[in-house]
Amino acid sequence: MERPLIFVTNDDGVGASGLRTMIDVARKVGRVIVVAPEDAQSGMSHAITMTRPLYLRRVREEEGLEVYACAGTPVDCVKLAFDYLLKEEPALILSGVNHGSNSAVSVLYSGTMAAAIEGSSYGIPSIGFSVTDHDPTADFGDYRDYIGRIVDQVMAATITLPFCLNVNIPNVSPAEIAGIRACRQARGFWREEFEKRCDPRGRDYFWLTGSFQNMEPDAQDTDEWALQHNYISVVPIQVDLTSYPQLERIGDWRF
Amino acid sequence: MERPLIFVTNDDGVGASGLRTMIDVARKVGRVIVVAPEDAQSGMSHAITMTRPLYLRRVREEEGLEVYACAGTPVDCVKLAFDYLLKEEPALILSGVNHGSNSAVSVLYSGTMAAAIEGSSYGIPSIGFSVTDHDPTADFGDYRDYIGRIVDQVMAATITLPFCLNVNIPNVSPAEIAGIRACRQARGFWREEFEKRCDPRGRDYFWLTGSFQNMEPDAQDTDEWALQHNYISVVPIQVDLTSYPQLERIGDWRF
Repeated sequence: MERPLIFVTNDDGVGASGLRTMIDVARKVGRVIVVAPEDAQSGMSHAITMTRPLYLRRVREEEGLEVYACAGTPVDCVKLAFDYLLKEEPALILSGVNHGSNSAVSVLYSGTMAAAIEGSSYGIPSIGFSVTDHDPTADFGDYRDYIGRIVDQVMAATITLPFCLNVNIPNVSPAEIAGIRACRQARGFWREEFEKRCDPRGRDYFWLTGSFQNMEPDAQDTDEWALQHNYISVVPIQVDLTSYPQLERIGDWRF
Repeated sequence: MERPLIFVTNDDGVGASGLRTMIDVARKVGRVIVVAPEDAQSGMSHAITMTRPLYLRRVREEEGLEVYACAGTPVDCVKLAFDYLLKEEPALILSGVNHGSNSAVSVLYSGTMAAAIEGSSYGIPSIGFSVTDHDPTADFGDYRDYIGRIVDQVMAATITLPFCLNVNIPNVSPAEIAGIRACRQARGFWREEFEKRCDPRGRDYFWLTGSFQNMEPDAQDTDEWALQHNYISVVPIQVDLTSYPQLERIGDWRF
């Protein structure tokens, strides 16, 4: 029987170290096709490219592995793969391994997770992986066993579609990892501190830098709590943004 | 008593026709500060600018109105406003009026709605407005009364925070509008048809073009149904992407 097809993408770009780890894990499970952005696309969220054309380049091809680069966003990569390139439906979508946390509300800004969410809308189970380590050169190979364990579980399970997981791994040695926990997204927000500078032409400019404010640090069922206690957090993700409690409240408004 | 402060932004850029309509409505309610992107940022979703500095330019100042342009994304505009520029907390955030629909899953790709969602995370009620008309020169002035009615309702109501509305207006004359309906986000997805072309240097490239596939066209409580029946749709939006039904299902998985 032919091995299953695994689709791989990321947001750190086709040259990222985390992508190599993702490909390594995927190759243990099946044949692999990668479409990743040419350049780093961190913080690109669910952005799509509407005003520029997209180029697609074959980077590498060998037994059981094809790698393409797309000069667009992570979501562009998924769309181009699923609506143009792929001749066969993959069994699984893997996004990452991202250099930096995508827990809590960061899921909204994340290109890694946007690619996974977009992929799940094609009716394929998808998983986004991130490590809470922003170093772009970090080697995540040590986490391969944990990542593989989650991938195997999803491949073996009876899945209700759509299905998308946001997996975050704490930046500690594998021996220190306390386990894997299914969680909900912690409530919180990013507060920015804009660093103001002056360019050589005398114009002020700003660098965006921020810190996450956890609104429920003691809630043990959240991804933030899990990560702070050395657990790998696994949050199932949906695309319905409707606030049903608010819908009930405004249902009787008279406009 | 001083009039309330209203913060206005959009994703079509500081020169967009829809922004003028939004400012007109806002000025009837209070003093207005605008921070809008320098350029069109359609499809930018929740993207933030991490690898380039941000410039902020004062475009215009008159009694009760200040307009700034930021060379970034819609979410950059909101962050720069709330974490740097504003000296006073606004009473309301208005985003739009967007040229094109942001109903159903389009809320994920929308810069207009990302700005509104981001704004709501600062604890301020926010509303994103869109008209299902992509013409960038379209004049939405005729919808001012409807938009004003929704704004007045939110300003008058007792609000539970966080609070964010996704309002879509069907592209028909105001006389044909059937009313305003509180709805949930319709289930569906965009399928793309990539138009393949060849550039003058012989390289293939692709234009992203797509169409929305409504998975529940007969569900009368959805925004898509409302719009197709000439209603203005109002969907309350949240930032928690956790799928609680899936969380229950995977809760007993053994990794």
